[in-house]
Amino acid sequence: MSGIDYRDSGVDIDEGLRAVNLMKKEVKKTFNDNVLSELGHFGGLFKADFPGMTQPVLVASMDGVGTKLKVASLAGDYSTVGCDLVNHCVNDILVQGAYPLFFLDYIACGRLDAAVAARIVTGLAKACSENGCALLGGETAEMPGFYNAGDYDVAGTIVGSVDRNRIIDGSAVVPGHSIIGLPSSGLHTNGFSLARAVLFEKAGLTVSDHHEILGEDTVGEALLKIHRSYLNQMKPLLDRELVTGMAHITGGGVPGNLIRILPEGCGAVITPGWDVPPIFRLIKKLGSIPETEMRRAFNLGAGFLIVTSQPEKVTELLLQAGEKPFPAGEITNGDSIEYDGEGV
Amino acid sequence: MSGIDYRDSGVDIDEGLRAVNLMKKEVKKTFNDNVLSELGHFGGLFKADFPGMTQPVLVASMDGVGTKLKVASLAGDYSTVGCDLVNHCVNDILVQGAYPLFFLDYIACGRLDAAVAARIVTGLAKACSENGCALLGGETAEMPGFYNAGDYDVAGTIVGSVDRNRIIDGSAVVPGHSIIGLPSSGLHTNGFSLARAVLFEKAGLTVSDHHEILGEDTVGEALLKIHRSYLNQMKPLLDRELVTGMAHITGGGVPGNLIRILPEGCGAVITPGWDVPPIFRLIKKLGSIPETEMRRAFNLGAGFLIVTSQPEKVTELLLQAGEKPFPAGEITNGDSIEYDGEGV
Repeated sequence: MSGIDYRDSGVDIDEGLRAVNLMKKEVKKTFNDNVLSELGHFGGLFKADFPGMTQPVLVASMDGVGTKLKVASLAGDYSTVGCDLVNHCVNDILVQGAYPLFFLDYIACGRLDAAVAARIVTGLAKACSENGCALLGGETAEMPGFYNAGDYDVAGTIVGSVDRNRIIDGSAVVPGHSIIGLPSSGLHTNGFSLARAVLFEKAGLTVSDHHEILGEDTVGEALLKIHRSYLNQMKPLLDRELVTGMAHITGGGVPGNLIRILPEGCGAVITPGWDVPPIFRLIKKLGSIPETEMRRAFNLGAGFLIVTSQPEKVTELLLQAGEKPFPAGEITNGDSIEYDGEGV
Repeated sequence: MSGIDYRDSGVDIDEGLRAVNLMKKEVKKTFNDNVLSELGHFGGLFKADFPGMTQPVLVASMDGVGTKLKVASLAGDYSTVGCDLVNHCVNDILVQGAYPLFFLDYIACGRLDAAVAARIVTGLAKACSENGCALLGGETAEMPGFYNAGDYDVAGTIVGSVDRNRIIDGSAVVPGHSIIGLPSSGLHTNGFSLARAVLFEKAGLTVSDHHEILGEDTVGEALLKIHRSYLNQMKPLLDRELVTGMAHITGGGVPGNLIRILPEGCGAVITPGWDVPPIFRLIKKLGSIPETEMRRAFNLGAGFLIVTSQPEKVTELLLQAGEKPFPAGEITNGDSIEYDGEGV
C-alpha cells in the first residue's frame, strides 16, 4: 500500500504559498497608518480610532459576487470580480452613512491556480485603494470535490464607521422628498442566474458573441462591467447632511431595496425615463420577461437612489463630482412603490 | 416563446425569505447592548466603545469550514459546521490576545433549502453566544450551476478587539519558555481533503461505518466533532498576562503554526506524548501516511499551544477552568521546530 500526501488529495500547499506571494504587493498598497499587522499574521490589526466622531459605530456587511463569477469563468477574465465585490460592499454600508475602514476576502476553488487567485486579489486591492479601504486579510481555500476546476467563489466582509448621530436609516424621509438616481454600469452583481439562463441557455449566446442591441460590447463584456462604487461622489452630500435616505439597488431591484428605507406612511412613485443599459433590453427581449419581473431582478440602470429634500443642491454637487444624476421619482403618502411609465 | 422568471433560473427568492425567518430568532439571541441594528438592514451596526481600553485595536479574521462540509453533507448533519466556523475564528484572533465583538457569515449553495440554512445559522448563533459574540449579519447566496445540489459552502468573518499594549505577537517569547498544549476534539476544520481521500476513496469507508480504532464513534461522528473554542479557558491567563505566545493549530499543523509566532533566534522542541484522538491513528494507518506528513496536515490532538514562563501557574488556572492542559515542549535557541519522539 503506497502512502498518500496532501497534494494527492487535491490540496496544493505550495501553490497556496505562491498565490500569497503574488498577492502580497497588491495588498500592501492598500495599507494605511491604521493597519498594525503584516500579511500572514493570524488576524489583521486595525487601530480603532475615529477622529472627530463622538459616538463611533462600526457598520459591517458581508456579500458575495454571485454567479457573475460564472461569466468571469466563461470569459476567462477574473480581473474585475474583485472590484465588483468591494464596490458592492462599499455601497452597502454607504447607504447607512458609513465610510469604509477595512475589507477581508474569501476565495474558494476546486483547484487553486495562483495566477487566477492573484488576479482576483489584485482587483480587490485596486477597489480597496479607490475607496480608501485597507485589505486587512483574507482566506484562500482549495476545496477539491466541492467546486468545479476553473470555478472560484469570492465573498468578502467590509467594516466601516459612522458617527451615531449621522447614521442614515430613512427615518427622516417624508412625502414630497425627491428621489435622485445614479447610473449603474450594467447588472452590477445581481440577476446573473436569470441573465445566464436567458442569454446562454435559452438564446444560446456565448460570452464572445455580439448582438446589435449591445453595440460594440460582446455579451461577456456587457455582463462583466464593473459594479460601481458611489462612495466618492456621495461624500460631499453626506458631509453636508443633504440626504435623508439612500438605497443600493441590488437583488430585489428598485422596489425591493427602496422599500427597506421608507418609514411607515411613506411610499414612492418611480418615474422611469433614465438611460437603461442595453444589456437589460437584450435580456428582456430574449427572455420575454415581463417588466415587473425585470424590475424585481435587476437595477435597470439605477444603481443607487438618493432621497433628499434638496434635489437641486444634490444634483449640482453630483454633477461637480463628475456623476450623472437623474430624477427617479418622489416619496408619496402611502405604503407601496408605484411606477409611472415603462422602463426597459 | 414563453417568459422566464427568477425561479426558473434556479434562484428561489421565497425560499430565501423563509430561511431568513427561520434564522431570525436564533440570530437575535446573540445580540447585546452594542448591537444597534435590526436583522434585514443593509449593514449591521455595532457601537464602537471599548471600556477600559486606552488604545483599542480591532482584530479581524476570515475563514471557511473547508471540506469538512463535504462530510456534513454525506452525514446529512449541518448542525455542527456553524459552531466549527465560529470557534475556529474565535481562536484565530485569540492568539493575538483579542476577544470577539461580532461575526458575519456567508452561506452559498446550489439550491437553497431553508431548513438546512437555518440549521447552519443556528450552529453559528449557538457558538456566537458561547463566545460572547454578536452574529451581526450575513449573506445567503443561491448560486445554481456553481454548487452541487446538497452542497453548502460556509465562511465567516470575526471582528474582535484588544488593547494595543496587550497584543500578543510572540515577541516576548525567549528560549526556556514552556509550551503547554490544549486538547483538540479531532481534526477541527483542517486536513479534511486528505482525510476524505484516505478514509472514503482509498479505504472505501462511509460516514456510517464503524472501525475498531474509533470505538463507539462512526467515521462521520469522529470527523464531525466540533472545533473547540479556547476563549473562555484562556481569559483568566490573558487577564493575568501569563502568556507570551499562542498558536492556533490549523492547516500546517504544529510546525506550520508555532513557527509563525517565534521571534528570530527561537526554535522549539516538541515532546509528543499527549492523547492523540483515534481518528488520526486511523487516517495514518489506512493512508500509510508518514509521521512528518501527519504533523503538517493535522493538529494530532494539540488544538492550541500556549507559550509561557510560568507553566505551573498556567496549568493550575487551566485545570480550574475545567481544561486538560498537557506539556508539549519548550522554546529553544535555534530557528527550527524539532520533535523529540513519535506522536501517532
